[in-house]
Amino acid sequence: MAADPPTVRTRVRRLPERGAYDRETIDAILDEALICHVGFVVDGQPYVIPTIHARLGDRLYLHGSTASRTLRTLATGAPVCVTATIVDGLVLARSVFHHSMNYRSAVVLGTARPVTDPEQKLRGLQAVSDHIVRGRWDEVRQPNRQELNQTALLCLELTEASAKIRTGPPKDDPEDLDSPVWAGVLPLHLTPLSPAPDEGVPPDTPVPPNVRHWRKAIGNERTLDGTD
Amino acid sequence: MAADPPTVRTRVRRLPERGAYDRETIDAILDEALICHVGFVVDGQPYVIPTIHARLGDRLYLHGSTASRTLRTLATGAPVCVTATIVDGLVLARSVFHHSMNYRSAVVLGTARPVTDPEQKLRGLQAVSDHIVRGRWDEVRQPNRQELNQTALLCLELTEASAKIRTGPPKDDPEDLDSPVWAGVLPLHLTPLSPAPDEGVPPDTPVPPNVRHWRKAIGNERTLDGTD
Repeated sequence: MAADPPTVRTRVRRLPERGAYDRETIDAILDEALICHVGFVVDGQPYVIPTIHARLGDRLYLHGSTASRTLRTLATGAPVCVTATIVDGLVLARSVFHHSMNYRSAVVLGTARPVTDPEQKLRGLQAVSDHIVRGRWDEVRQPNRQELNQTALLCLELTEASAKIRTGPPKDDPEDLDSPVWAGVLPLHLTPLSPAPDEGVPPDTPVPPNVRHWRKAIGNERTLDGTD
Repeated sequence: MAADPPTVRTRVRRLPERGAYDRETIDAILDEALICHVGFVVDGQPYVIPTIHARLGDRLYLHGSTASRTLRTLATGAPVCVTATIVDGLVLARSVFHHSMNYRSAVVLGTARPVTDPEQKLRGLQAVSDHIVRGRWDEVRQPNRQELNQTALLCLELTEASAKIRTGPPKDDPEDLDSPVWAGVLPLHLTPLSPAPDEGVPPDTPVPPNVRHWRKAIGNERTLDGTD
């Protein structure tokens, strides 16, 4: 957590000891968070819309229908904020005031641009697919030209980003430590339940390992080759 | 889902069949979602910040430190967007294009105002506490005057809100239905793991039932008396 904030507006102001600005920390949050919330402004009104994202090297990708207002607004180069948050647990203190949450969030500011290069677009869409279920892209029918035309891919450089993290037990006031109440952390985790096969899937079709053992705690390793 | 959108700007444009505008649907999402993402604008730049919320009747409450930039910006009556999203599962289709997610999201637009009436502020803060762990407020030390002075509570009327929901299996193209690949839904759920007691909690202290059996799928029943 030694890195400095890239800009004044990404500096974590409230509880600055929770701020982090190194890319390793930021990337890990973006990679693990299943979805993000995208903020943009139309006629002075902010809108916050949940969507899927993916990171590939120094870029964050967002995708959606070419008919989507969010995507169309962002494609104009409007200022955007992308925030990804992972809730890790409830922090149950001995006083109401010191209750908190353990979490990791990453905030990315900037402007997005549409990806038009066909090869980069395919790689970006594959990153989004991998972000959800690694390897699924190679197991199912890949997009045809018509589907690609209906899908917009936007790209945001990770130049202005910050992370905020809270971990650990409650921080109670000394005078509350004698309280007889239970205090501690209730860890929370986004957990898969039993996969539900679609109608028409033959009963002997095995659930693939990337679904059977699904967990969202991994990045896009293929970014490591730096070929993005 | 028969209600009409309250305003043009809350109308769900993309896939309108997923839109819902009745308060019962919207309230259920706000009540179940553990956190929300708050969007506001400073110098033309949108910011999206995760925080805890609570609904009490027709109002949404947000709280935070009086030193928080988010809270201070909102308290000026700046336009705000509060979005709460629950991820219910991954929708794994037979083609990349038809992959999706099952989710429920609620979007609330408006302006927030600070709650200054001491009794309303206490009720709002208790709602926030109940939103996280029902009944915890009565089990721990309640806020003293100094703590209340350090805590801002904002209130947003639920007059301009919409929900967007996707449920059910993948919707594949007919020509993909013969694909041998497994398709279906992987349900996801925010699940509590084992509670971790804080240092200093006597080993024989029982974990209270609201923590031991914690689940975030319930609203603020005390809103039903309409006394907010």
